[in-house]
Amino acid sequence: MSLSRRYSVLFDAVRIGPKESKNRFWATPHAIGFGSDHSGSAAGYRSMRAEGGWGVVFTEATTITPEMDKSPHRMSRLWDEGDVRNLAHVASEIQRHGALAGIELEYNAAVGPMTEGRGLTPRAIVATPGESSLAVPYAGGLIEADGAALAEIRDIYVAAALRAKKAGFDLITLHCGHAASILAHLLIPYYNTRTDEYGGSLENRARFHREVLTAVRAAVGPEVAVGLRLGVDTLDAPLGLGDRGLRADADTPLFIEHMDDLVDYWDFVIGGFDWAQDAQSSRTAAENFEKPWVGGLKAFTTKPVVNVGRLNSPDTMVDIVNAGQCDFIGAARAGISDPFLPNKIHAGSIEDIRECIGCNYCVSRDIGTMPIGCTQNATTGEEFRRGWHPEKFTRAANHENDVLIIGAGPAGMECATVLGKRGMRNVHLVDAADHLGGSIDWVATLPGRHEWRRLIEYREHQLRKLGNVEVILGNPMTVEDVLDYGAGIIITATGSHYTRDGINPHDRTAFGLEAVLGDRLLTPEQVVRDGAPVGQRVVVVDSDGYFMGPGIAEMLAQRGHEVILAARGEHIGEYQRYTREITPTLRDLRHLKVGLRVETTVTAVGPDSVRLSSPDRDDEVIGVDTVVLVGTRAADDEMYHGLMARRDDWQANEVSAVYRVGDCVRPHFIADAIFSGHRLAREIDSPDPTRPLPFIRERRIIGGGDADFVLGAPAQQPVFLNLSTL
Amino acid sequence: MSLSRRYSVLFDAVRIGPKESKNRFWATPHAIGFGSDHSGSAAGYRSMRAEGGWGVVFTEATTITPEMDKSPHRMSRLWDEGDVRNLAHVASEIQRHGALAGIELEYNAAVGPMTEGRGLTPRAIVATPGESSLAVPYAGGLIEADGAALAEIRDIYVAAALRAKKAGFDLITLHCGHAASILAHLLIPYYNTRTDEYGGSLENRARFHREVLTAVRAAVGPEVAVGLRLGVDTLDAPLGLGDRGLRADADTPLFIEHMDDLVDYWDFVIGGFDWAQDAQSSRTAAENFEKPWVGGLKAFTTKPVVNVGRLNSPDTMVDIVNAGQCDFIGAARAGISDPFLPNKIHAGSIEDIRECIGCNYCVSRDIGTMPIGCTQNATTGEEFRRGWHPEKFTRAANHENDVLIIGAGPAGMECATVLGKRGMRNVHLVDAADHLGGSIDWVATLPGRHEWRRLIEYREHQLRKLGNVEVILGNPMTVEDVLDYGAGIIITATGSHYTRDGINPHDRTAFGLEAVLGDRLLTPEQVVRDGAPVGQRVVVVDSDGYFMGPGIAEMLAQRGHEVILAARGEHIGEYQRYTREITPTLRDLRHLKVGLRVETTVTAVGPDSVRLSSPDRDDEVIGVDTVVLVGTRAADDEMYHGLMARRDDWQANEVSAVYRVGDCVRPHFIADAIFSGHRLAREIDSPDPTRPLPFIRERRIIGGGDADFVLGAPAQQPVFLNLSTL
Repeated sequence: MSLSRRYSVLFDAVRIGPKESKNRFWATPHAIGFGSDHSGSAAGYRSMRAEGGWGVVFTEATTITPEMDKSPHRMSRLWDEGDVRNLAHVASEIQRHGALAGIELEYNAAVGPMTEGRGLTPRAIVATPGESSLAVPYAGGLIEADGAALAEIRDIYVAAALRAKKAGFDLITLHCGHAASILAHLLIPYYNTRTDEYGGSLENRARFHREVLTAVRAAVGPEVAVGLRLGVDTLDAPLGLGDRGLRADADTPLFIEHMDDLVDYWDFVIGGFDWAQDAQSSRTAAENFEKPWVGGLKAFTTKPVVNVGRLNSPDTMVDIVNAGQCDFIGAARAGISDPFLPNKIHAGSIEDIRECIGCNYCVSRDIGTMPIGCTQNATTGEEFRRGWHPEKFTRAANHENDVLIIGAGPAGMECATVLGKRGMRNVHLVDAADHLGGSIDWVATLPGRHEWRRLIEYREHQLRKLGNVEVILGNPMTVEDVLDYGAGIIITATGSHYTRDGINPHDRTAFGLEAVLGDRLLTPEQVVRDGAPVGQRVVVVDSDGYFMGPGIAEMLAQRGHEVILAARGEHIGEYQRYTREITPTLRDLRHLKVGLRVETTVTAVGPDSVRLSSPDRDDEVIGVDTVVLVGTRAADDEMYHGLMARRDDWQANEVSAVYRVGDCVRPHFIADAIFSGHRLAREIDSPDPTRPLPFIRERRIIGGGDADFVLGAPAQQPVFLNLSTL
Repeated sequence: MSLSRRYSVLFDAVRIGPKESKNRFWATPHAIGFGSDHSGSAAGYRSMRAEGGWGVVFTEATTITPEMDKSPHRMSRLWDEGDVRNLAHVASEIQRHGALAGIELEYNAAVGPMTEGRGLTPRAIVATPGESSLAVPYAGGLIEADGAALAEIRDIYVAAALRAKKAGFDLITLHCGHAASILAHLLIPYYNTRTDEYGGSLENRARFHREVLTAVRAAVGPEVAVGLRLGVDTLDAPLGLGDRGLRADADTPLFIEHMDDLVDYWDFVIGGFDWAQDAQSSRTAAENFEKPWVGGLKAFTTKPVVNVGRLNSPDTMVDIVNAGQCDFIGAARAGISDPFLPNKIHAGSIEDIRECIGCNYCVSRDIGTMPIGCTQNATTGEEFRRGWHPEKFTRAANHENDVLIIGAGPAGMECATVLGKRGMRNVHLVDAADHLGGSIDWVATLPGRHEWRRLIEYREHQLRKLGNVEVILGNPMTVEDVLDYGAGIIITATGSHYTRDGINPHDRTAFGLEAVLGDRLLTPEQVVRDGAPVGQRVVVVDSDGYFMGPGIAEMLAQRGHEVILAARGEHIGEYQRYTREITPTLRDLRHLKVGLRVETTVTAVGPDSVRLSSPDRDDEVIGVDTVVLVGTRAADDEMYHGLMARRDDWQANEVSAVYRVGDCVRPHFIADAIFSGHRLAREIDSPDPTRPLPFIRERRIIGGGDADFVLGAPAQQPVFLNLSTL
């Protein structure tokens, strides 16, 4: 297949000031946790987008001076000559694949603990109090920048822009969105309470923007494109800034007109306190969810406009370009999930697109100060350090093998797909259930999780295309069946289940609910998958700490049950703080009148009541008809252990190896299950596939140099691992 | 002065298996946030202890396999050849100064998000549930290690020990303390519920220890000393493990006797869930606070014993050695605060010891994933990256200057001390108050903070010894006075104050309490320093988030007031979570019946009541006589701005420069104030003392090598900073 007329508009070349993009695909700035200190990994990640067809590929928000340092967050930095060298590598790797390379410069409006820049004096537009419970514990306040200080900060922008030019970037974006930079704060009345020529009227609040852009343009000259990333609306209170914010139907169009002569392009985003309002999960945000704010703004500029907003479907992309909403399809997550999105559209391989499920696992990795990862795409972040390419697979050295995979959940499906692409002779993917997807099949029925079905749909399509892979459903197997099957390599991917009692991680004892409650105690599977009867009054006991507890509480409250959600930990749905879903989750649970309890333990259970205890509150005795325990997950590893116990029978059955992947090894994130299946398939022909091969760790190595940072370099190898050789 | 007979026992040489330490000072393993990836900084820090006279210098808990990875925490790793190279550098730098170099190997008992080791399978002694609200969000569970897996883990220990030997370490400690490693978990019934030959009886629970130690000793041979760091008591419930723990008066002596033939030394520590129980702050722990647990254990071993426990005073050290409590004085914090503690005792310069105040700022840096810092010692962690030596000061190039420092708080005292040591002609340290120390003078009267006075006492002694420094107290000055003073360099160090209204960082509006409450609203200074009358019913409103709010609540409750402590943030005393003081603080506040409210806002104020609101609780109207607002601190920067406004008069008054340091720049930690004063004094003769000089950032630099990691290397220099040269 090839480019259809329908999608050809997406591949128009578009002028951006002095530059030209080959198409309308714009990989917007987003942090990936490698910063500028791990530039091999950063270059590997960014350039994969270029290779996949994106016309413009940005790095990420880059701090321009050590006085604004968010460490220990691993941000990109453009402070010194070493940073220039590292980012030049990233830019050239992007350009090598035919894309324009962009960088986003930021004088942050908040700081971290300044672990690098101790003794420096971060400045803000007004004196800003520090507070320990805001994003960074006791980060300290910021100093108010007077006119002279603003001039100095302007010069800091200019110096950074010159460094960016020296590093070879084609496009320089100044960050004025996400309430994250001094430029954004100047524009927003909530922050800008100055009474001098930089406060008050919009002209005053935009004065510094004009000064900085004028100076930057003069310094970098006409060959670099310069633009603004503008937070066009800071949203309604209480999640947004409300009346004290910047609104798309008020000052924003005026600001765009006022600045239009000084920019080569506009990158429009939304959001107030939290940048992730611009990266909402599929739980709350549909495709093109930013249209209500960004939709009408192109009318106010003569320059090309970038939009974002969970833009996944090529049809939507075409529609919004044709409707004049934007010139560029901006995306971070769609490209994290599938760097080859543009090329696949161009080739007409729409069903091969590995569509983002909007789970925000990628966001959680950023919030948690970790390198990027992706549930859908196991190769994300592994381009350099493991040499993994999302679309290229080598034929396995041991391809003359038949493989039996037991379990068609995320890990099994991924493993079968990759083994299929690696050319194994036959891959049989077998499941007792009559459907693909394992637990995802029922998990995706929780409120707001239906897009998670894409985990199944993408792989289902891939498996269908692979002639060497056969999917066999509704086929339960015993250990004997498996040994008899005739496969030389056996892989168990049998998943996990929530236990009815299990171990409370907080005190390493069993919860003790089952003995008293009997069948009025239910597990998530019973409630969601099996549709077990649930009484009117429900207590959901959550010691899992992610989406399952709040999801079940929401589902049952929607159905009219009276629900209390009791978490032993400090927060409801702890990990949703990392996916940045917690604020809307709490809003929705409160709206549904779900009772929320944290740091709460079930200290007594009666036949129709439980006692809830918490350190700073009186005990409550709650009448209850059903308790749902979202407790410990246990690996379903009987098949694996059964096969290992029969090791003596392998040879007779021509079984050469038994492996396990996914939750049946270690119940964890879906992302980990998929990674596990992918990893084993990538390394099925390594000396010992049970152990991941060494990966490249970028760090300073004493006496080292670039030769130490290639796969297989001696510095990256374990020493003395194989003790039998000692 | 020289070594007194009283202290000479501390300088006995002591045999440690095949090695000999020149004295009894043992720098125990402690993390410093540089890990093994920033080995220049690590070597600079560790070797400073060796230079300061410690006979044994350890690095830190070192993970021995990527399957146990606590990233993003920057742990030391001994996984591959690159790590060996980096740690060999650390070991040789320690040994160069005459100390023995030690390393502590750990197969962790818990993991982080495995950002490096994705796809690996961390193992534990029993299957361990993951839970999102434990230390690491959704870190995932651990797999139970069967006998074959334990044998594999034994081999992992052996391989790591061989790497440690290759890196040149003299001493190898296996970590069996802090409930932090698989060895500790095996020993502790709370964790070890195995029913095989590794569970049950003490002999069974110690079986793996014998296997590992036997194998390690056989592998490394007789020239390396091998020991155990043993958590001898896991403390009482609920803060400790109670009956299910390991107790110093029960199994511990038996374990020591059982293992004694396989170790060359014992490093005894205490603690259960939280390693910081072994590093309690001065708020709860006196010197030698571990004696009740470790005091009697030397009787059960023939090998040398290390103790820790806030051992600061040389007299205590002598006493516990003479009493047979231990052979080695172990310390982390005492050496963080003063690396030259042993040499100063040897030289008889007892009053020159920069004594640890036990504030646990160092601990907070570790918990917050930051490089180490110290309130008392500004050079901590800066040995390599800024080239700072705690005891060596170069004569300033501009020493023919008189310096006036206004403000004798922490920043001013530190700045005067360092400028004095750098040989400035005259340094006058002037304060309006009749005492040294600024706010520390009253802060140290809060419950449990008296040791913070050491910040004053150490500097007072140093200042007294410096002939070129004069301290002038009770001397308020105007801008005119300062200009007239005759000093060429003026430094303001005028501190900060808690505002009576200020800005609530959570909504950027004023708190609005003062207008209604008038003089029934009090600031911390009014309550603590000025002794203002406080009514019976008190609400402490805390938007500061560290020790001040809880400290005032505790003080007033001790005096019989009815106190509610209301924090806007998610936790009481947020930053005390980082100093690991929060658990005992909450215990003490609850014991005093202080009402605790989090996520709570004052939404209405009446003449004798306030309304407290919180999202998941009904509003409360609280009768109140006094409200203490622990709100925003504001810089006392009038003097600085007054002097800057008179710039035109500087020349006539022979003033060449005006600087500011400490809280009057930016109210923050005491550690930051002292750092600020120190930094300016270190760089008083740099081209622009207002800006810190570039420091060495250890990272991979594309095309780089060791030459890039020296002070002044081009890669570490800002480019295009001086725009006037463009």
